[in-house]
Amino acid sequence: MSVQTLVEISPEALVERLALAGRAAQRVLAQMSAEEKAAALRAAARSLREAESDILVANARDLAAGEANGLTKAMLDRLMLDPARLAGIAAAVEQVAALPDPVGQVIDRSERPNGLLLSRVRVPVGLIGIIYESRPNVTADAAALCFRSGNAVLLRGGSEAVHSNRAIHAALVRGLDAAGAPVDAIQLVPSQDRAVVGAMLAAAGLIDMIVPRGGKSLVARVQADARVPVLAHLDGICHTYIHAAADPAMARTIALNAKMRRTGICGAMETLLLDARFPASAEVVAALLDAGCELRGDARACSLDKRILPAGANDWDTEYLDAILSVAVVDGLEAALDHIDRHSSHHTDAIVTADAVAAERFLNEVDSAIVMVNASTQFADGGEFGLGAEIGIATGRLHARGPVALEGLTTYKWQVRGTGQVRP
Amino acid sequence: MSVQTLVEISPEALVERLALAGRAAQRVLAQMSAEEKAAALRAAARSLREAESDILVANARDLAAGEANGLTKAMLDRLMLDPARLAGIAAAVEQVAALPDPVGQVIDRSERPNGLLLSRVRVPVGLIGIIYESRPNVTADAAALCFRSGNAVLLRGGSEAVHSNRAIHAALVRGLDAAGAPVDAIQLVPSQDRAVVGAMLAAAGLIDMIVPRGGKSLVARVQADARVPVLAHLDGICHTYIHAAADPAMARTIALNAKMRRTGICGAMETLLLDARFPASAEVVAALLDAGCELRGDARACSLDKRILPAGANDWDTEYLDAILSVAVVDGLEAALDHIDRHSSHHTDAIVTADAVAAERFLNEVDSAIVMVNASTQFADGGEFGLGAEIGIATGRLHARGPVALEGLTTYKWQVRGTGQVRP
Repeated sequence: MSVQTLVEISPEALVERLALAGRAAQRVLAQMSAEEKAAALRAAARSLREAESDILVANARDLAAGEANGLTKAMLDRLMLDPARLAGIAAAVEQVAALPDPVGQVIDRSERPNGLLLSRVRVPVGLIGIIYESRPNVTADAAALCFRSGNAVLLRGGSEAVHSNRAIHAALVRGLDAAGAPVDAIQLVPSQDRAVVGAMLAAAGLIDMIVPRGGKSLVARVQADARVPVLAHLDGICHTYIHAAADPAMARTIALNAKMRRTGICGAMETLLLDARFPASAEVVAALLDAGCELRGDARACSLDKRILPAGANDWDTEYLDAILSVAVVDGLEAALDHIDRHSSHHTDAIVTADAVAAERFLNEVDSAIVMVNASTQFADGGEFGLGAEIGIATGRLHARGPVALEGLTTYKWQVRGTGQVRP
Repeated sequence: MSVQTLVEISPEALVERLALAGRAAQRVLAQMSAEEKAAALRAAARSLREAESDILVANARDLAAGEANGLTKAMLDRLMLDPARLAGIAAAVEQVAALPDPVGQVIDRSERPNGLLLSRVRVPVGLIGIIYESRPNVTADAAALCFRSGNAVLLRGGSEAVHSNRAIHAALVRGLDAAGAPVDAIQLVPSQDRAVVGAMLAAAGLIDMIVPRGGKSLVARVQADARVPVLAHLDGICHTYIHAAADPAMARTIALNAKMRRTGICGAMETLLLDARFPASAEVVAALLDAGCELRGDARACSLDKRILPAGANDWDTEYLDAILSVAVVDGLEAALDHIDRHSSHHTDAIVTADAVAAERFLNEVDSAIVMVNASTQFADGGEFGLGAEIGIATGRLHARGPVALEGLTTYKWQVRGTGQVRP
């Protein structure tokens, strides 16, 4: 489809046209074997390497425009590609190609008394829409995960990365084509009109699932407006509760890592809950302060160290994504569970304790996608969970929860094998 | 909450109040053991039996009002309770109590190289909204399924069954109370204001899932307006394809059963596809006509029997729910797959064939919730699938597909057990 044609049609008509092409390609893709899909992805990775200079030239255009438009240094860094990063993108596509294909897996089977044989078999979700911002690697990462799991994908990247995304997409499609795979399985929306995003969000029945990848305002808009099911998390307000029976050294090490290893990821701890009976709270907060973290505490927390600032009411519901942490002192497990129930975004919450009963109660009673005992919340990640990759982390309750990779991009169907049975 | 208080508040405030009470009850319910929940449901069933006269008196009021309001005979029959039907409702609650509790089941577990132990554990979805019409048995059936799987439920029944629903609900709650279970786990919306349905559909974050139970206009409204995830099917446009290699006697028996056993259920066949090379098509259509079924055919089908009427373009997309069937002659498996792809509602589609290759292609390539070989589409039912019960059949692609019972009312969380691990 040429851009010339497309600019003449409405956003809704454009999305419909792309979706129908994607759905047709998906029907072919759904019947490809695991090895055929893997071979196509390996060809796409080769094609990315071969297109290195094209992609870097395109990226340089985006970077120049970004500088002219006053993008921040952090945004420019997210946008920037170099040979090493591009090699990493191609290698990631190959890693996805090597993951086990979930399609065709039998979830369970049974035989009914009348002899009917039932099995539930994994099948692709269908057409996935990815709406993302400035990271051009998402173009290849998300496309590879969708393709591996038999889904067609409709990619809608940010304007700031438009040339990079087009070059990466063109390379991927050349690889698919060389491997004999349907090229419309991976489509990039050929328009930066923001109304196209609205049309994608409204395209129930044409797009089966939307995954937003980006900042909070993007995710919030998608969640608020979508008529298509959305797989996403808005906030990662993650808690670590240091129980009375926590090992002091472990508590200090985990708290430091959960907050300070990388402050900008969704699994970073944002609130520390210190049990009033935990004897080493002053040491834990001192270690965080000494590491350069700003602490905002309730009255009892502030009494632990003069450097702690008083927290405001909003602090308990704030995802800082920075070297800032809210700290509260709580009276026992019940109070910690209450605080988490009120303030958690239900992404990842952890307890540090040597008390097995308290640990199991926390694991059972905290209603979050990921609950942890004696580990850093920064482990909340598909790669760390052994999924091989990650399309995102979901804090919704249906379909898939927590880190989502290939399995979350599938659904199932019931296959029933009879020998002429009729219902009495 | 008294009705007097409630009529003074807005539909949104009413739904919020009910939802918060339900969510609080659900947190208690989520920690009850399988046996505690089963005991509470058995108490609820006993309470239904003890309330027989109250419930039948209430039902008589609804029937009298229904007659005065000119309800059809079929609607009055759906509404009507008698001692046998009520005993059946109580027995169904006991059957649900006896089903295995899905909560706490470990879906999978793994150990990471760093020693972290991961498990995915089933947990309740949360608060389920049920929006239904005239069948008062749904009040008990849906409540029991939600309760067994640890979910609170907010029931919104039809005006025509309001007294029956209140009496059944009151009995259920007396049973829960006697067993020490949280009574707000099963709530009936104490208002027949239609705006309350709108408020439930909009209550994202308060209600976790909506299940509409009723006619097409109800389901269509729910699907069109809901901001909360919906588990439902709109249409059951089910196909049976008689392949060239079908056994003629089996084809006749299955076609008759799929259409005529009960014409009003969602799994009833609505379109028969006859392969042009199947030698006994005339016998199959004659059997259907002789059984009193009206057939509407394409040109080739009409040539099989003079009694077949010509089909209009809409017939291929019509769910008759009656003794009417559309019939087309198709040229081989590909043509049948094409027809189904264009016209199926992706509920249940079947092939009759003795050719194993054709059977497997049909099972793999037809993208419907249920695909069958050599069986009647009327088997599309949770009970027939061995699920013990059914909250509904879903034709959406995410979360759950086909017949949905207890497992579809659960989600999962990730439990991570560490010994002090931090992320490098």
